[in-house]
Amino acid sequence: MSLSARIESAISASLSFAMKEPAPRKLAQALDHAVNPGGARIRPTISLSVAKACGDDKPILSDAAAVAIELIHCASLVHDDLPCFDNADLRRGKATVHVAYSQPIAVLTGDTLIVLAFEVLARAAEADPKRAVHLIKILSQATGMPNGICAGQGWESEDKIDLSAYHRSKTGALFVAATQMGAAAAGEDPESWTELGARIGEAFQVADDLRDALYDEKTLGKPVGQDDLNGRPNAVSQLGVRGAVSRLENILSGAIASIPSCAGEAALCDLVRVYAERLTPVLPAHHAAE
Amino acid sequence: MSLSARIESAISASLSFAMKEPAPRKLAQALDHAVNPGGARIRPTISLSVAKACGDDKPILSDAAAVAIELIHCASLVHDDLPCFDNADLRRGKATVHVAYSQPIAVLTGDTLIVLAFEVLARAAEADPKRAVHLIKILSQATGMPNGICAGQGWESEDKIDLSAYHRSKTGALFVAATQMGAAAAGEDPESWTELGARIGEAFQVADDLRDALYDEKTLGKPVGQDDLNGRPNAVSQLGVRGAVSRLENILSGAIASIPSCAGEAALCDLVRVYAERLTPVLPAHHAAE
Repeated sequence: MSLSARIESAISASLSFAMKEPAPRKLAQALDHAVNPGGARIRPTISLSVAKACGDDKPILSDAAAVAIELIHCASLVHDDLPCFDNADLRRGKATVHVAYSQPIAVLTGDTLIVLAFEVLARAAEADPKRAVHLIKILSQATGMPNGICAGQGWESEDKIDLSAYHRSKTGALFVAATQMGAAAAGEDPESWTELGARIGEAFQVADDLRDALYDEKTLGKPVGQDDLNGRPNAVSQLGVRGAVSRLENILSGAIASIPSCAGEAALCDLVRVYAERLTPVLPAHHAAE
Repeated sequence: MSLSARIESAISASLSFAMKEPAPRKLAQALDHAVNPGGARIRPTISLSVAKACGDDKPILSDAAAVAIELIHCASLVHDDLPCFDNADLRRGKATVHVAYSQPIAVLTGDTLIVLAFEVLARAAEADPKRAVHLIKILSQATGMPNGICAGQGWESEDKIDLSAYHRSKTGALFVAATQMGAAAAGEDPESWTELGARIGEAFQVADDLRDALYDEKTLGKPVGQDDLNGRPNAVSQLGVRGAVSRLENILSGAIASIPSCAGEAALCDLVRVYAERLTPVLPAHHAAE
């Protein structure tokens, strides 16, 4: 089975568990709306790729780790889109959950997906309770306070932002969790996979800033210029478009260099290279000579 | 240490973990605002009482179970109070989190408390990974979909409510989790503790309906008549005040009868009797002859 088919099948199995009768219908549908069809499934792809590079000796745990990370990511998108945060109407080219259903359902959808992420890991624990507990610890730290994505979002309510803590938690935390959980699912030491996750996270943040600056709403499938509107720090406003592109290239070569030596090292380097190509935007003519 | 001191000390330890530097300040304060000073800490008291009745051989796990349930309960209050749900300004006699801080901070506070609940259980796993995983499973089922408190809240967005599923999930789920998790923390079979939790949950629902019908906003510390306003099912509107009181008494004697035989059985019966007295309202004169 391809990596992508494996991820979709695992996500679908976990969702159908949560949507079982006698589940309230709208909330059940909203869970599906929030998770399917997915975006690029980048975080679970990274997690599962690292698990495979580390031997993938307990596939149930590797799958659960990938699913749990994606569910947390989807939960964060649903809550971030709410009127009190980004007030976004569109996500992945379709209506956001609060627009398609309602604000109450959107709040509950995020809550439910967070809970489901931990439930998925607990249910996979029969394969190895110690590893499962380790995965739950990593995921909770990457999601909550003081260093997870909740903390990252929390920084946006502060008058004085600790920029390094903000970036590390807002975007970095889940990418670091992705590489660490892939390793931990396969019984390897997660710490040596921290740098790869951190660098990929940084690369995505810079790439996102570039897309936000260069593309229009129709291409992105979501509103553009949100960072400028919301006064958030942004690589393009700090370094200019070409500066940001060259920063992105540096980060990605650092990511490849950081991959620990392991059986699946070559395949993982290829994966990061594929992402690197996808991430680096083709600059419009007026930026080329900037 | 008294039960209550033990609960407060465990809650306080888990919160200070989440509020550590470099946590964003407002979100950190809001976590404390949402959890302290607490209400009656009923769910953790039940959970810890059952753990003690079952031998309490791993106090770290018993404490973690009690804290995790209370954090989930507090999270649900913060989100339920939001303008898109109950739109409540007051909770436990003080401003609700979205009024004291902001809606974004209130959404994040609920999210963070949910995550922290699972993190607390995962951190206590060193005492016994298998029991910890069991606790995480019980808590996730009681919180998420299709049978947890998220499902319960989700039913309020449906045109046709499955009343039995609604009550079981909305109020019952966390009480059942409280008795089950107390037992599981002490290594006992949680299933034989299900009925006690379910009956206590039912009793609290009826008592809440009675308080809502009989008392004023100042006494309650929160807005009254919310069920009528929001069109929710209610024991008083179905049975009348005296009918609801007699239903409450029946439920509580059933709860006492359901307690499995164990070393701490007598102490636990006393606890339920104390709750029974506190729960049963003194009827105002005009209701006495109703």
